[in-house]
Amino acid sequence: MKGYIKREILKVTKELNREEDLIAVEKRLRLRVNGQEILKLYCSPTMVRELVAGFIMTEGIIEGSWCAERMEISYGDDIVVDVPAEGEVNLEGATITSGCVGGITFDHSLNTEGRKPSDISLGAGQLRELFQSFQRASNLYNLTGCIHSAAISDGKSLIVLAEDIGRHNAVDKAIGYCFLENIPLNDKIILVSGRLSSEMVSKCIRWAIPVVVSRTAPTALSVSLAEKNHITLIGFMRGIRFNIYTHPERVRL
Amino acid sequence: MKGYIKREILKVTKELNREEDLIAVEKRLRLRVNGQEILKLYCSPTMVRELVAGFIMTEGIIEGSWCAERMEISYGDDIVVDVPAEGEVNLEGATITSGCVGGITFDHSLNTEGRKPSDISLGAGQLRELFQSFQRASNLYNLTGCIHSAAISDGKSLIVLAEDIGRHNAVDKAIGYCFLENIPLNDKIILVSGRLSSEMVSKCIRWAIPVVVSRTAPTALSVSLAEKNHITLIGFMRGIRFNIYTHPERVRL
Repeated sequence: MKGYIKREILKVTKELNREEDLIAVEKRLRLRVNGQEILKLYCSPTMVRELVAGFIMTEGIIEGSWCAERMEISYGDDIVVDVPAEGEVNLEGATITSGCVGGITFDHSLNTEGRKPSDISLGAGQLRELFQSFQRASNLYNLTGCIHSAAISDGKSLIVLAEDIGRHNAVDKAIGYCFLENIPLNDKIILVSGRLSSEMVSKCIRWAIPVVVSRTAPTALSVSLAEKNHITLIGFMRGIRFNIYTHPERVRL
Repeated sequence: MKGYIKREILKVTKELNREEDLIAVEKRLRLRVNGQEILKLYCSPTMVRELVAGFIMTEGIIEGSWCAERMEISYGDDIVVDVPAEGEVNLEGATITSGCVGGITFDHSLNTEGRKPSDISLGAGQLRELFQSFQRASNLYNLTGCIHSAAISDGKSLIVLAEDIGRHNAVDKAIGYCFLENIPLNDKIILVSGRLSSEMVSKCIRWAIPVVVSRTAPTALSVSLAEKNHITLIGFMRGIRFNIYTHPERVRL
């Protein structure tokens, strides 16, 4: 499904023009586990499998194992995603338990312990080049001006780039891709277009991603969380300029 | 409470500088109705009373009347807001009913019906000037680069300007201010810094605000919602340029 539509709009400058423009698509996603709807969210209709995988894993929606390969996605007025799970879901008082056979399964409880961000080291020039390639690759943003992006990198190139109308969704998609591909995160860098609020940084802490780089600003709470959890937090990456808020020891200047 | 802190950071350009910078404060707000905690959200610690009023009214949290003047706000590690209400709260299965005497009270059920956006008319130059004064007045953004803002205007000047780390919170604060001051919204303009996703436009539809203007883009779903609900949706307001997505009849070009 495409992430944008074409639509005629009025463009006002000194004169008035009627032009076609590209507008980002926003769809409601209804997430069902073992047939029961557990939540709704709004997203761009791309990388839906990765979004749901990243969201379920990061938010701890399912306690136990579940089958990413047997996830069913249907695209209509809403996007409906059905996830079979062996574990338990505890949301709004409802508890679901049922079977799941075969496919990739995750045991959520295995992933929440013992993760530590590694002591990788990056050159300042290397960081700038990575961020530039991230921004060049952000197609939907360049087309619509309305999209956030997130990418995971090993310091050399981008492993995955995800785009979404929501900052959190873009991060969940990028992280979800790494889960599905069995790529560890505790020696990677995450690059994001949006502001670093505490919920964004918490996702990175949960998966022990050691370096978080944004085009824009962190909040005071996210700086404090990054400080405590040994995360290198970098903001305002623009051209040759960037700000290091916490743990500068990973950056060679 | 101030919306920012000062903190020493490393600024990297061609050289490395250790400088003090202003960083937006992000606090967790715990909302309690008649003593029972009903939800948590993250926000900037300014205009908290307006935020809670706008949020409660727009999201329909309380069914019945409640007392804005008797709201109690305490600032600690978290911001804790206690709201006395006569109505019912139905969130996560819990139902709360209790008494509330005196003060300003709202009857939520009265406010949800019969609202229609009015047929106001605005000149293109007037819109540009309003938006410029909105951007000049957005102090926290100018200080921290990390804040969204929202303002309500009667077409001549700004009635209220609200800032928050969250797009939705900024809108709730501006709308909440108008509730507390008994200012009708169906003949006003709302100016916002952030993207117009469906949830943002839904808030404006709910209170029949006829004109919504943003510095940046709307999503396809918000364009479709504005079209159906007779809302004039304007995006990419930058300098002399702006785009009209729906109901251009309110704008004199």
